[in-house]
Amino acid sequence: MSLISRVGRLSCRRLQNISRLLNPTKSKGPSEFGFPALYSTVNDNSSIPSSSEPVSQEQTQDPSILKPVSDNFASSQVNPAAQNQKHSSYNPNSSFLPLTIKDVLKTAALDSSVSLKGWVKFIRKQKNMTFVSISDGSTTESVQLLFDSFNKHLIAPQVSRGASVSVSGKLQKNYRDSTKFDVYPSSFDLIDDCPPDYPFQKKAMDPSYIRNFTHLRPKLDNFKSVLRVRNQASMEIHKFYQDNDFFQIHTPIITSNDCEGGSSTFSISAEMSGDQDAPYFSKNVSLSVSGQLHLEAACLGLSKVYNFNPAFRAESSMTHRHLCEFWMVEAEVCFVDSIHLLMDLIEHSIRQPITQVLNKCPEDIYNLEKASESPFSPSTWSLADYTKSQPFARVSYTDAISILEQHHNKTGSFKYKPSWGLSLQKEHELFLADNYFQSPVFVYDYPAKIKSFYMKSNKDSKDTVACVDLIVPGIAELVGGSVREDDYNTLSEKVEQLYATSCMPESKTPGKLATGSDKYWYLDTRKYGSAPHSGYGMGFERFLQILMLKKNIRDVTMFPRYYGYCDS
Amino acid sequence: MSLISRVGRLSCRRLQNISRLLNPTKSKGPSEFGFPALYSTVNDNSSIPSSSEPVSQEQTQDPSILKPVSDNFASSQVNPAAQNQKHSSYNPNSSFLPLTIKDVLKTAALDSSVSLKGWVKFIRKQKNMTFVSISDGSTTESVQLLFDSFNKHLIAPQVSRGASVSVSGKLQKNYRDSTKFDVYPSSFDLIDDCPPDYPFQKKAMDPSYIRNFTHLRPKLDNFKSVLRVRNQASMEIHKFYQDNDFFQIHTPIITSNDCEGGSSTFSISAEMSGDQDAPYFSKNVSLSVSGQLHLEAACLGLSKVYNFNPAFRAESSMTHRHLCEFWMVEAEVCFVDSIHLLMDLIEHSIRQPITQVLNKCPEDIYNLEKASESPFSPSTWSLADYTKSQPFARVSYTDAISILEQHHNKTGSFKYKPSWGLSLQKEHELFLADNYFQSPVFVYDYPAKIKSFYMKSNKDSKDTVACVDLIVPGIAELVGGSVREDDYNTLSEKVEQLYATSCMPESKTPGKLATGSDKYWYLDTRKYGSAPHSGYGMGFERFLQILMLKKNIRDVTMFPRYYGYCDS
Repeated sequence: MSLISRVGRLSCRRLQNISRLLNPTKSKGPSEFGFPALYSTVNDNSSIPSSSEPVSQEQTQDPSILKPVSDNFASSQVNPAAQNQKHSSYNPNSSFLPLTIKDVLKTAALDSSVSLKGWVKFIRKQKNMTFVSISDGSTTESVQLLFDSFNKHLIAPQVSRGASVSVSGKLQKNYRDSTKFDVYPSSFDLIDDCPPDYPFQKKAMDPSYIRNFTHLRPKLDNFKSVLRVRNQASMEIHKFYQDNDFFQIHTPIITSNDCEGGSSTFSISAEMSGDQDAPYFSKNVSLSVSGQLHLEAACLGLSKVYNFNPAFRAESSMTHRHLCEFWMVEAEVCFVDSIHLLMDLIEHSIRQPITQVLNKCPEDIYNLEKASESPFSPSTWSLADYTKSQPFARVSYTDAISILEQHHNKTGSFKYKPSWGLSLQKEHELFLADNYFQSPVFVYDYPAKIKSFYMKSNKDSKDTVACVDLIVPGIAELVGGSVREDDYNTLSEKVEQLYATSCMPESKTPGKLATGSDKYWYLDTRKYGSAPHSGYGMGFERFLQILMLKKNIRDVTMFPRYYGYCDS
Repeated sequence: MSLISRVGRLSCRRLQNISRLLNPTKSKGPSEFGFPALYSTVNDNSSIPSSSEPVSQEQTQDPSILKPVSDNFASSQVNPAAQNQKHSSYNPNSSFLPLTIKDVLKTAALDSSVSLKGWVKFIRKQKNMTFVSISDGSTTESVQLLFDSFNKHLIAPQVSRGASVSVSGKLQKNYRDSTKFDVYPSSFDLIDDCPPDYPFQKKAMDPSYIRNFTHLRPKLDNFKSVLRVRNQASMEIHKFYQDNDFFQIHTPIITSNDCEGGSSTFSISAEMSGDQDAPYFSKNVSLSVSGQLHLEAACLGLSKVYNFNPAFRAESSMTHRHLCEFWMVEAEVCFVDSIHLLMDLIEHSIRQPITQVLNKCPEDIYNLEKASESPFSPSTWSLADYTKSQPFARVSYTDAISILEQHHNKTGSFKYKPSWGLSLQKEHELFLADNYFQSPVFVYDYPAKIKSFYMKSNKDSKDTVACVDLIVPGIAELVGGSVREDDYNTLSEKVEQLYATSCMPESKTPGKLATGSDKYWYLDTRKYGSAPHSGYGMGFERFLQILMLKKNIRDVTMFPRYYGYCDS
């Protein structure tokens, strides 16, 4: 707004640099500061760069543009001849990275000559023709290579499923499907073979078999889709928060925590060379289970903040729902003290990224849906329903208990009897989302005694707190959030109670406070200009399970870590 | 490309969902799947929503749109009355989040009535007027509140620097600077006061003093700029890789490592409740020092990948250059075996994000430059030079040693005598970047014996490897990368040597391989269709030091962790 005027008032040398940056017309750099993509788009038949050609020309710089040497070392000390050793092949306008299959399919013209590298997906031999399909992970598309009697001698005997190959040839329409392309190779080189003990020889393999080879999974079509969708989902989540002016904060992973008997955290230690008795830190430290408390500190200066971090819980559960290392998105927004506003924000933050991923990765999503163990959930709420206008359901904890009690009284079908004052079990949550509401459902205003100390009291006769869990079909809990206690004295009392009784439920103990100085910094955030604020956290892998319809959380992350398992 | 045709061939129910997603005209959701921003833009005088008004209307859903209940639970079991408890205030078109100062300055019209919340930056009393400046971190701009004899009674005595306040009033032009805005308050409420022991009472404070209050730093203008620039830099780095079709991989943080005496890693343990003798994992595990090896596995399926992860090194150094927890960007690109291509990629990946951050956060960068301890580097290479076309210098290790030897022979000014076969010391690196080349400089082709086992041999008489370090003015090493050894037999031999001799320099041991099964998974990546590939890693905080001209790395991250220090 007042950018130019501000700059106009200033005159130091540094400002001149900034000013040049603000005014692209004065800059000698690329206009609008936009560097081109790392490859050039090619629309004619001739100009696709060879993907294997290294850029090797040396540009000896014009000595006249060398700048004066600073005071510390006089320029006379430098051998002028050595200055000619400066050289560079950098050129912001050059195309230099090898073209991927995606690049070629996007840019190359029919009947043009193309060069590709990738891995063999399959080889199919017919009487007069041999088809070799190759892919490189850049897209869901693979390219079919056609060999007839004239060029089939190019296929070396070591070319098999999984081998890496380099091919050049003419791009042409698929003879059956005009929307697809084939290549008729004029050269076809083996980069590296793939021996017969390659574990992914079969087309159909059990998910539990595939999980034995986590490090090789990126070679499988389905897992390539997993990784591409995971990438897109990560970007769309960032985009949601950035579009709404939240700032990303890198909350710390290593955090101090003196709580005794904390069975849900990982402790950290380092052996210092030379002095093994000296601990690296002066206190016990552990891996963060949540960045919430640190995010609150940032929120009380920047107003809207989020993180997107790994988090760690030493769960001893071996179920398909738990990882001990997972990624989590947490957000805090200042000057919001309404649980309904918070639910609005959470709902946006789920629906928009899902909508965008479906929009941008339709083929990957289609592949994943096709491979999904069906049905993902007994609910008729589908992935596409997240993109529509029908809102998520909302129900208070008290009303949810009534619904569950009525159902249980009629059918007796729950293992755990629902009762006001007790936590909701997974079977209860899934009943609400999959069967009763048949949609994602916010359950809000839980009893204080089963929730965390930092949640704001509703000051009602039932002693509930302003918190919310989002339960989604097929998954159960996806998001947990609350209005935070922002009053210094109230929070102080709750913290003191916490230390006195150590009665916090283990599973609801994000960022447990140490008995030492740690509680003071957290209380400090309420001491100097405190303000109402609210926040929530979402497990990224559970979000991905929704997107990919994967029942096993180990299948949405490349290198899963869980109880007893840290291989590759 | 062949999206529509693919979809056209299929007919299952899931596909119908996907098809609706692909064809927005059939969807009942918002057109083009674009949800609006979380607040509406306001261009008239009347329609700025009150920021404190909770959305509370309940929408009882039309029962006719309830879907059939699935087989597991018959719908007759559900009390129909309870279904009316569904309600929601979600409306994708509603504006509901409180407006920030940025929102108001961007959207509100002159003479309109606005509501703002924020923290008091300062209070200035003059004879007839009182000025109160408030900010909320959403922008570098603060808003000045004007009080004269008619409204100065609104200022409660507890309103002081650091207090949180809520204000409503008329937006008007600043009477001195027409590019800035003032607000003439009609109401002014204290949210929370700020007691006199608030540690940031003074305007000028020593950086080392400020570092004692990491959790309160987001309340300071300068540190708000740090966090905003850090946020933007993170996004621009993602954007660079996404624009060039790299996929983000979340490489694991917990990694197995049986190497004995590894003094540079943090070990992890968990006490399992009930059975303290049973370790959580079946092997020793530690915090990742680099995701490179895992990224290589992904690269050999997806071709272009990167990560942006926390990494951990138990450095015992207490210097201003080291954190034991930091963020790192690593990239791997397949089918690239030229160190010069790799340098091109690294150069792009540095210059484009810097250019974009300078373009998008000019006022924050200006504030940070103004506050920088000057000079940041004796080099005349400035921040703005990263945005121009002059390329980074490039010099081989052998030539760099010649330059350093000549300089040392003439001046004797180095503490460590440079000599072929020895690592470059920081003083050597800074001489090259700050004084000799006066620009960022790539040093490539180091002797194999001082570099890591996974780097590809140049097969020259000097036994060098195809690796590169990027040295930048004022910082020294920013990036390290190499062409990777991709031959199974060669890598196997190197790994065996490594175990036999345990001679890898500790500081160059990313992802040390365990003596157990771990080496097999890494070698496996070269067994089944191996391919040439190259990669590199960049310390994010060092990148931020360049952008923010901060000499102390602890000042570019909100909660720094280093030897002996894990407070707040």
